[in-house]
Amino acid sequence: MAQQINTSNDPYIIVSSDSHAGLQCEEYRPYLDSSVHKEFDEYVNERHENRRLTEEINGEYVEEWESTNAEGLRGAYDPEVRDKELDADGISGEIIFADGDAVTGMESPPFGAGLAAGQITDPRLAFAGAKAHNRWLEEFCATSPARRAGVALLPITHGVDEAVKEVEALAGKPGIKGVMIPTLWHEASPYGSDHYDKFWAACAETGLVVHTHSGEADFPSYGENIAMYVSEVAFWTHRALWQLLFSGKFDKFPGLKYCVVECGSWWVGDLLWKADVNFGASWKIKKMSSRMKGLLTKLPSEYFGESVFIGASTMSRYEIRERDRNGIDALMWGTDYPHPEGSWPNTAERLETDFQNVSIEDTRRLLGLNAITCYNLDTDGLREVADRIGPTPEGLNQNSELRTSPTAKRDGRWWFDEYGIEWKGSESGH
Amino acid sequence: MAQQINTSNDPYIIVSSDSHAGLQCEEYRPYLDSSVHKEFDEYVNERHENRRLTEEINGEYVEEWESTNAEGLRGAYDPEVRDKELDADGISGEIIFADGDAVTGMESPPFGAGLAAGQITDPRLAFAGAKAHNRWLEEFCATSPARRAGVALLPITHGVDEAVKEVEALAGKPGIKGVMIPTLWHEASPYGSDHYDKFWAACAETGLVVHTHSGEADFPSYGENIAMYVSEVAFWTHRALWQLLFSGKFDKFPGLKYCVVECGSWWVGDLLWKADVNFGASWKIKKMSSRMKGLLTKLPSEYFGESVFIGASTMSRYEIRERDRNGIDALMWGTDYPHPEGSWPNTAERLETDFQNVSIEDTRRLLGLNAITCYNLDTDGLREVADRIGPTPEGLNQNSELRTSPTAKRDGRWWFDEYGIEWKGSESGH
Repeated sequence: MAQQINTSNDPYIIVSSDSHAGLQCEEYRPYLDSSVHKEFDEYVNERHENRRLTEEINGEYVEEWESTNAEGLRGAYDPEVRDKELDADGISGEIIFADGDAVTGMESPPFGAGLAAGQITDPRLAFAGAKAHNRWLEEFCATSPARRAGVALLPITHGVDEAVKEVEALAGKPGIKGVMIPTLWHEASPYGSDHYDKFWAACAETGLVVHTHSGEADFPSYGENIAMYVSEVAFWTHRALWQLLFSGKFDKFPGLKYCVVECGSWWVGDLLWKADVNFGASWKIKKMSSRMKGLLTKLPSEYFGESVFIGASTMSRYEIRERDRNGIDALMWGTDYPHPEGSWPNTAERLETDFQNVSIEDTRRLLGLNAITCYNLDTDGLREVADRIGPTPEGLNQNSELRTSPTAKRDGRWWFDEYGIEWKGSESGH
Repeated sequence: MAQQINTSNDPYIIVSSDSHAGLQCEEYRPYLDSSVHKEFDEYVNERHENRRLTEEINGEYVEEWESTNAEGLRGAYDPEVRDKELDADGISGEIIFADGDAVTGMESPPFGAGLAAGQITDPRLAFAGAKAHNRWLEEFCATSPARRAGVALLPITHGVDEAVKEVEALAGKPGIKGVMIPTLWHEASPYGSDHYDKFWAACAETGLVVHTHSGEADFPSYGENIAMYVSEVAFWTHRALWQLLFSGKFDKFPGLKYCVVECGSWWVGDLLWKADVNFGASWKIKKMSSRMKGLLTKLPSEYFGESVFIGASTMSRYEIRERDRNGIDALMWGTDYPHPEGSWPNTAERLETDFQNVSIEDTRRLLGLNAITCYNLDTDGLREVADRIGPTPEGLNQNSELRTSPTAKRDGRWWFDEYGIEWKGSESGH
């Protein structure tokens, strides 16, 4: 597992683990099965009404955001504009999710089949919307497969067999590297049940990484209260992780990878501490062990960086400091382009300040290497772009003498020593 | 707010913020309205069947736990035994929840009206079971009101008016200091809605502290998988906090206090960082602010230690180290007596190791002072007990020279300086 990481001043290959693309909603029509065109017209009207309401509530903000960034926002669907924006941000490659427009939702795939897929109740519409986006995404990623890794939409809660067929249709398509499932399973079987096993098997075989992405949460409990949503959305987004991990799916389907996106990384370390201790070292296991026997072959934290990755988007400086605890081999930085929550169009400035005290090895992992491992990306193709537009360690104001401590990972995962849990990996995590 | 804390070697007044008591299930019969006796007999049979199953699955553990601790476990309902156990553990006072038996559930209030109250579907049974326990708890706490602060059961999801009447019946009863509501609201209105306002008002007026306590979670999603439950139960337990805080209940009902119990404290700091930043300092607020205007009068973290407290039970050493971040004025240590997850009957040993590097001031806060503030306890009565049985700083192997840094609290809540949020409290939090 030892990997020699380039500590020279060569440019960083930056892969944004979280970006978005999508057509303006009307434009999905040609990609959509004609049997749902009537429902689609209603959906488009509903989108326009939603935009009108958003403008009513928060018009000043919408106007400012859209007028300041008019050109760059077109990169949500225009490959040439997109490449210019990526270049200016220093981004070589990106993992691309649906829903280009996070402000008024005008680039949502038909019937809300993107980040809001769990809200759809009609399986027919769920799959029709997902497939329309997927067909467009294939074309979009094929315009530059080294830079664009697309994440297709798979509403598995609405039908496992149909989802498996769609995975087979996506396999090997240039630039398609993953699938996104609904964040919540609602009334369907939970993800840890056996119900979806055919789907996990198909993803493991085709090498498509499974994702949940921040968006949905328990909306009925919040009413209009945005703070409750913000406080809970990470939980709802990463919930699928425990379902997959603790039901033993990563052991049952070798090659299966899961990545949780845009819900930060601050929650990882504490939950891994709890999980490792409860199922590896604590006396509490006496009360619980009989029900967990044989499910996992490793400690929960040992799945991170192999089966589990974190698309942590524009990490806070706090999260960058805590990288060893949360997973130096699992965390992937991202811009969230073209959403306003992210670093675009000011990514360069952000990188210049946030990574000053990070070693070059660790920076290379967080900004690109982990994503290359997770998605099996085209390193040569990416390096070609990076050589042209990637920022260098000097450009990020980094001290080239700074090295990752040989015991960094073990030190970060403090619970191994504190609870006397056997440490099996390399101590630096590399 | 400045409070002079005794840094001498005087014994600690330890108040366990989390302990349990209850009759063996059959014994609740005399406290129960006769109209539900028939259903009660069925319930008792079901409890015995549940015990039989638990023994089948995990018999060795049950046998070992119960035989080793036979005498002390009787303290769940026998005041004399209980006092002896508290004395031996060095505990002066305690906050008492239902469900004495966490291993086979034989001391659950009628119909599961304790920690599993949310699972009851019939309002009649929910209130009958709760009131039976409450009437017994009043007697139990009256045997030593300075030491025993009881938390009564209030199934508010089954009826606000009936809950308000029960609060009025509990007001002023010696030793009754709080009420516990169901952890989950299930199909009822969420706690942040206006639906329960009469109840919050009644609690604020009577000074009864509102609690949620670890126990319930989203069981249908876990099947038999205990690890999923363990990984999520904290979320489900503290979820009510955001409902109350962000809906402005603490501003609307001055005097209302909420305490979340036995779900640790490790999650507090990160969520407060997020909440303070999102609703106090970040540019993100531009996208959200219009929907949060006027709801809160303070930053989320500023409600901790005044309106919000954390019954963090037997904190890990990690959580003790992180006390300033998570709330040096809100955290309350506890034994969880007589549950096996806690420190009993080895509390003395636990305290001797875990607080070695903590200042005497901070130790006094975590072990007792914060609970005295939260529940308005009888300090003189407690001191009398502590003088007899409380461990001293020397007994906890503490260095009497160790002082709390004057900027400890501000340093712990690192996000104030890092995000440029105005700091309004005293820097030590005292």
